[in-house]
Amino acid sequence: MSQETRSDEFLFGKDIPWEEVGPGLKRQVLAFDDKIMLVKVKFDAGGIGELHDHFHSQVTYVESGEFELTIGDQTRTLKGGDSFYIPPNISHGCICTQGGVLIDVFSPLREEFIK
Amino acid sequence: MSQETRSDEFLFGKDIPWEEVGPGLKRQVLAFDDKIMLVKVKFDAGGIGELHDHFHSQVTYVESGEFELTIGDQTRTLKGGDSFYIPPNISHGCICTQGGVLIDVFSPLREEFIK
Repeated sequence: MSQETRSDEFLFGKDIPWEEVGPGLKRQVLAFDDKIMLVKVKFDAGGIGELHDHFHSQVTYVESGEFELTIGDQTRTLKGGDSFYIPPNISHGCICTQGGVLIDVFSPLREEFIK
Repeated sequence: MSQETRSDEFLFGKDIPWEEVGPGLKRQVLAFDDKIMLVKVKFDAGGIGELHDHFHSQVTYVESGEFELTIGDQTRTLKGGDSFYIPPNISHGCICTQGGVLIDVFSPLREEFIK
């Protein structure tokens, strides 16, 4: 990684460490700079993303699996190929009903993920 | 879509139109607001993302396939699970050597993609 707040340009998944972030839940921090950060999160079935909020805008791509996703007061079931948008400061969370992967992207970066 | 510059919160892949953007190349614009935009790009083998640049920061996740990716003066081969970072105003492009999918994310949004 350079001295600037940014990742390398080319990131090979096999070389990036996984961090356990909860029961049945681990993540890789992939490409980022100060304005944007891409994070891969792998869920086992039953894994829970607890309700939380943050000031960042978030967009997520569901790569695989099935998730019961709550944004504000709405809950929907999303599967591979679906996507969602979390506005700043809106509470959100999910329950993984079939193991899979979310690609979460934040703007600006989540500084706490690289400290 | 609301009056604001943002997508719906829940986006189901089957409901989102595909736009042909070149030979062997099509895209879906998924979740976005003014700060961030997630775009799914499907390549047939041989599809080419021509060299170009833009002022946006870009992070991309390789969902599947194999791509010869050029960023500035470097070229690498990336596969499913890999990721890359394109700094603002740096020339980049790719050749798809095995058909697959890129998840491109930009900050700020690519306004021209929703006009």
